[in-house]
Amino acid sequence: MRPSPRNPEWGGPATILNVGLNDARHRALAERLGQGAADALYLRFVQAYAVHVARLDPDMFEARAPSAEALKAALRAYEDETDEPFPQDPAQQLGAALRSMARAWEGTTARLLRQAKGAPAEAGLGLIVQQMVPGIGAGVSGTGNVQFVDPVTGTAGVTGRFVAQSLGPDGAIANGSTPVASDGTGGALQDLAPGVFADLVAYGAACRARLREEMQLEFTLADGRLSVIDAVRTARGARAELRIAVALAQDAIISTAEAVRRIEPRALSELLHPQVDPRAARDAFARGIAASPGAAVGRIVFSAAAAQASAARDEPCILVRRETAPEDIRGMHAASGVLTERGGMTSHAAVIARGLGLPCVVGASALRIDARDRRLQTAEGRVFREGDIITLDGTAGEALAGAAEMLAPALDEDFRTLLGWADGFRDIGVRANADTPADAQTARDFAAEGIGLCRTEHMFFEPERLIVMREMIFANTPADRASALERLLPMQREDFARLFEIMQGLPVTIRLFDPPLHEFLPQTREGLRELAEALDRPLSDITRRAEALAEANPMLGMRGVRLGVAMPEIYEMQARAIFEATLIAAGRGAPVVPEIMIPLVSAMREVELIKTRIEAVAAAVRTALGRDFDYRLGVMVETPRASLRAGDIARHAAFLSFGTNDLTQMTYGLSRDDAGRFMSAYVNLGVFPEDPFQTLDLEGVGELLLIGAERGRRTRPDLTLSICGEHGGNPESIAFCRRAGFDYVSCSPYRVPLARLAAAHLALAERAEKTS
Amino acid sequence: MRPSPRNPEWGGPATILNVGLNDARHRALAERLGQGAADALYLRFVQAYAVHVARLDPDMFEARAPSAEALKAALRAYEDETDEPFPQDPAQQLGAALRSMARAWEGTTARLLRQAKGAPAEAGLGLIVQQMVPGIGAGVSGTGNVQFVDPVTGTAGVTGRFVAQSLGPDGAIANGSTPVASDGTGGALQDLAPGVFADLVAYGAACRARLREEMQLEFTLADGRLSVIDAVRTARGARAELRIAVALAQDAIISTAEAVRRIEPRALSELLHPQVDPRAARDAFARGIAASPGAAVGRIVFSAAAAQASAARDEPCILVRRETAPEDIRGMHAASGVLTERGGMTSHAAVIARGLGLPCVVGASALRIDARDRRLQTAEGRVFREGDIITLDGTAGEALAGAAEMLAPALDEDFRTLLGWADGFRDIGVRANADTPADAQTARDFAAEGIGLCRTEHMFFEPERLIVMREMIFANTPADRASALERLLPMQREDFARLFEIMQGLPVTIRLFDPPLHEFLPQTREGLRELAEALDRPLSDITRRAEALAEANPMLGMRGVRLGVAMPEIYEMQARAIFEATLIAAGRGAPVVPEIMIPLVSAMREVELIKTRIEAVAAAVRTALGRDFDYRLGVMVETPRASLRAGDIARHAAFLSFGTNDLTQMTYGLSRDDAGRFMSAYVNLGVFPEDPFQTLDLEGVGELLLIGAERGRRTRPDLTLSICGEHGGNPESIAFCRRAGFDYVSCSPYRVPLARLAAAHLALAERAEKTS
Repeated sequence: MRPSPRNPEWGGPATILNVGLNDARHRALAERLGQGAADALYLRFVQAYAVHVARLDPDMFEARAPSAEALKAALRAYEDETDEPFPQDPAQQLGAALRSMARAWEGTTARLLRQAKGAPAEAGLGLIVQQMVPGIGAGVSGTGNVQFVDPVTGTAGVTGRFVAQSLGPDGAIANGSTPVASDGTGGALQDLAPGVFADLVAYGAACRARLREEMQLEFTLADGRLSVIDAVRTARGARAELRIAVALAQDAIISTAEAVRRIEPRALSELLHPQVDPRAARDAFARGIAASPGAAVGRIVFSAAAAQASAARDEPCILVRRETAPEDIRGMHAASGVLTERGGMTSHAAVIARGLGLPCVVGASALRIDARDRRLQTAEGRVFREGDIITLDGTAGEALAGAAEMLAPALDEDFRTLLGWADGFRDIGVRANADTPADAQTARDFAAEGIGLCRTEHMFFEPERLIVMREMIFANTPADRASALERLLPMQREDFARLFEIMQGLPVTIRLFDPPLHEFLPQTREGLRELAEALDRPLSDITRRAEALAEANPMLGMRGVRLGVAMPEIYEMQARAIFEATLIAAGRGAPVVPEIMIPLVSAMREVELIKTRIEAVAAAVRTALGRDFDYRLGVMVETPRASLRAGDIARHAAFLSFGTNDLTQMTYGLSRDDAGRFMSAYVNLGVFPEDPFQTLDLEGVGELLLIGAERGRRTRPDLTLSICGEHGGNPESIAFCRRAGFDYVSCSPYRVPLARLAAAHLALAERAEKTS
Repeated sequence: MRPSPRNPEWGGPATILNVGLNDARHRALAERLGQGAADALYLRFVQAYAVHVARLDPDMFEARAPSAEALKAALRAYEDETDEPFPQDPAQQLGAALRSMARAWEGTTARLLRQAKGAPAEAGLGLIVQQMVPGIGAGVSGTGNVQFVDPVTGTAGVTGRFVAQSLGPDGAIANGSTPVASDGTGGALQDLAPGVFADLVAYGAACRARLREEMQLEFTLADGRLSVIDAVRTARGARAELRIAVALAQDAIISTAEAVRRIEPRALSELLHPQVDPRAARDAFARGIAASPGAAVGRIVFSAAAAQASAARDEPCILVRRETAPEDIRGMHAASGVLTERGGMTSHAAVIARGLGLPCVVGASALRIDARDRRLQTAEGRVFREGDIITLDGTAGEALAGAAEMLAPALDEDFRTLLGWADGFRDIGVRANADTPADAQTARDFAAEGIGLCRTEHMFFEPERLIVMREMIFANTPADRASALERLLPMQREDFARLFEIMQGLPVTIRLFDPPLHEFLPQTREGLRELAEALDRPLSDITRRAEALAEANPMLGMRGVRLGVAMPEIYEMQARAIFEATLIAAGRGAPVVPEIMIPLVSAMREVELIKTRIEAVAAAVRTALGRDFDYRLGVMVETPRASLRAGDIARHAAFLSFGTNDLTQMTYGLSRDDAGRFMSAYVNLGVFPEDPFQTLDLEGVGELLLIGAERGRRTRPDLTLSICGEHGGNPESIAFCRRAGFDYVSCSPYRVPLARLAAAHLALAERAEKTS
């Protein structure tokens, strides 16, 4: 009896169990094979049954040299432990084995892994019951398995082991394990039985051609007679999976559509894992088991709640726990890596981290973790506290102090080939959210079809700009404000020109200034004092005006278009910078039609007012520079009211992009920054089926998207619709946007490949449905 | 030519202008009446025309003894000022008079007053052109007016003045003003010409019966011959209006429906003005003109923005300005009273304040107001600063230091009669928002049909409760928390029992605890130190936990049902208090079916969880006390998502009450606390047609109400629907809720009469529409 191929992937038993041996068959085997061989076979059977079916202590049945005494001892131990004689009825043995496997399938670890892998909740256990073919005989005999590709890289090549079993003169079995493929030194199965080897290769090729898959064969040899007893899908990592699918399609065994369909979008994130640069200096402070590959840099957090709070702040973190439990899953989701003091390769942390594709080191037992005081101490006495930055190297099984140099993941030819095929099937656009030239370059590397969201405010946080920004905020007169903005203009212009150049004519959507002004002020009294000195103003003046800018609920305050209406000079400067950059980029060979996006709109008239001003700036730039350019003006839909009034708003907008982060906050009345402390409990209690900041809430926020899209398109049939924000890269969100007739999704650059593939899957699934 | 009756009410000209006199008619009059009388009439005409039509300086045409010289001087002055001779063509005179009146109608002050009075934007100017009847002759001659009710109280009684005009022997006119009605001392028109007086009274009664209105007559007497030249609606205050309407209905001249329709709901607020108790001590620090009656207590603010911010915090304020300008209107709306240094009875502040029914004192010229430093100084050198509490007595024209003792407005029999009639026509319920026994008593006095919103958190801010509340917040263990809640239980129970008793069986909707816990913590370091001492805990511990409770956006944070889910003990305590109070009230003869309302819901499962717990508490109370009671559980719809998911939510809710304050904040993504600084600009720019916190936004928030109502009723046809919050008392909101099939509106107790009347108007208007 063997499990079906999906079982181990989904956390079920992978064990092959023989059933049907009993005292009577033992006697018959002894007559045919000799007493020693029969004893050895029966002993091995009893051992496996006791451990895997009756779940007795493996120590009591540890492998020992087969002998009549050992067999008797094992049978006695079984009876002592279970108060029953070893079962003789094959049907009873089979029933017990089936029940045991079903129990394992329903166990917590298996369920969690299935959940993490996205298996359907009702996924069933598959088991195959087939006739035994013992590989025992006088000639070349034994059992083995053989693969035809490398399980890590997926490249072609025969691997596998053969366990030869020869009957000794006393009838006892001698075992010896050898490789299947010859390495030229002799002794491999290929050397012993070249004909058998050739047959295996032929069977493998036949399987690949007929089953359209790389299969691993299990076989027995009895006196040189080959029996292939099983062919299962070769176990493989994500990289191998990709290589295999591409190779099968290139060999015309499967279609390119099939190859695309075979790669789970989520699996791509594993391929995109960065690694610690091997050439860089390493300050390792902890060593453990390399439980899940990849590397990540982040701040130490000691609880799942802290991990979620950190994620809410967009700060990567490493979750450090003595060990993890099911209630930590949300925290693991939120973390960039997991480090535990206890546990092994099959511990909760390790299983889940692999399922999530998260770098993980477990069993770093020299560490002393004190979660209450939020500190950890190494064997050498070094102390790290919550918030300290470390690097977790899940590939090497080490934790390093500080932020280590990282290498971007290698994106090979197969990766590009498959995604190229995916793009051929895809029917919804994929853009990237990119604020900086580096982001834009990543977006280009991942073949994003443009920038869907460029947040301009990050540009003002660079030190030399921040001071000008603050001068602008504290300006006493419109003239002073204009003078500060005049100094920001060339910096913005160059920012945009560089983005346009990198994107080489692809559309770039620039969101106008969004955050409240107080975000640009120092938060401490000391900082205010320095600012007062820098601006040569009395501290009391600076303090008073900083206080006047403070807000009770900044999320719902004076920001976005409200600032644009109140201080039109800011948006005018940005519009000028965008238009001048457009002309510069055109001169550098990257003509672009920039898209200007107005944030936090809640009423049509806001758009109308800003539009009028931007049109005036465009006219002024055209006149001043004597050259023409084109641009599009649109709205970021982030308030429920903007969705409801999309029909009005579309009268003045060429595109609507749904900012689902803020829209979720307002639809729920829930600040993402403040939700961390109870989101975990809420999801565990099933109050929310999922964290709506992770998974788009289709029932509430989703309805507002549909309303907005429908009303917007009714006013303007050619309205461009999209979503930006973190939901943009999720397969469920993409499916939703596709159904709703959106033009594109925009997500973080590293999610772009996943989004491209997921979108292709959706188109292919629909096509399959239509033809079925 | 005279204005139509609506003009003066709506800010238009009230002047009667004669036209048609010229040199030729002057000569003809001289022949008929003598030169002196003709000169006097022509002079008076030229003066009026110059000032009211040509808008020349009144000083140049000041009344002087009529004579041929005075007439010549006036004609010359006219020519000097206008460079044109005095116009001789009656048609030209008429045209100029019409244009002049139209200009006044379109003037700023008139427009603002019309806006404040709720006149339609396109309201036209009415003018009547009729033949002149000069009241000049040898016998009893003159002009006069007469009213048949008191313009302030509306009680019956003849008043009015008669200006006798007798031709002197030289043909000159002598004027003398006397009362119309005799006071027994002789000399009144009634004494001089009792027959004329009797005719006037008969004409008045005829007007009242035929025109179904109290009319004021203007008349001329020429040689004892009475000509009634006009009958206009008697000018009157709100109190008189009410008395007149009730009396007309009681006399069966109009129907009760008509009486109800005649009282503008907004006018009631004037009747409800509190007054400073005349028996209390007064510390007046400023005196000015009593520009608008009533009195109010509030904190001083020096700008419209500060007034709006104060209103957002629910803190009454008195707006203090040197003078007001149109951009202050929003601030005046938000203020409880207005005090200005400059201006008279027709200044902007005075006109607008009367329009808004706001107590107002203008021209307090001894004050020195410094808005920049936010202080004011009295003649005696006393200094008041922003935030200081004062009392504005608009009836006496004084400002008093501190909060003076107030008298509730007198609600007389007429008031009750009319509202009783209104209730007979009304087809939507009106409840009150009442948090305290005092509020509940006011609600009862105003015949509210129950309490639609009782916010329980105010109950925890009383000093002796606050400390227990803080113990609860800082409890280390569930047992400690339970013990603090155990001490709060009897206080809450008595709160509720008193409310139930006052409401005498009317429904009471109690909203479970809503605010974030940090609202109950001291805001200063000193306060935290005191708290640490009171709780006998280290300051560092208190500070750390207070910091942990702080939130980036409290409006969107850990409050409402989220707190109820996370700390179920709080809601359990409140439910127990409500149920025990229900039994106590029943024992005291006030059986009630309390309504428990869950705040800030965004998902159905939140309701399900709380419902289960409350049901368990109900069962426990029933068992422990061995008595049964009934209750209803419902949801406060404050998040857009709760509206969208109302279909689900209604499965567990007997009622939905829309909290339009928070719903507006979330639909717009706009914090009311932070909107003050730009709302005024937004409304002036027409970005928002109205402040959505003042006037329900029908297009956005309103649609969410309709969606919620429709989906909720689809699930549960008998679902009770209502709105609570400040929009609840506005006529537009009531109209909206009525159309949407809501069961009731709930508003502040003082708005209840207005809401009752407005609801009756709506029902009557619909009835009128159906029969027309």
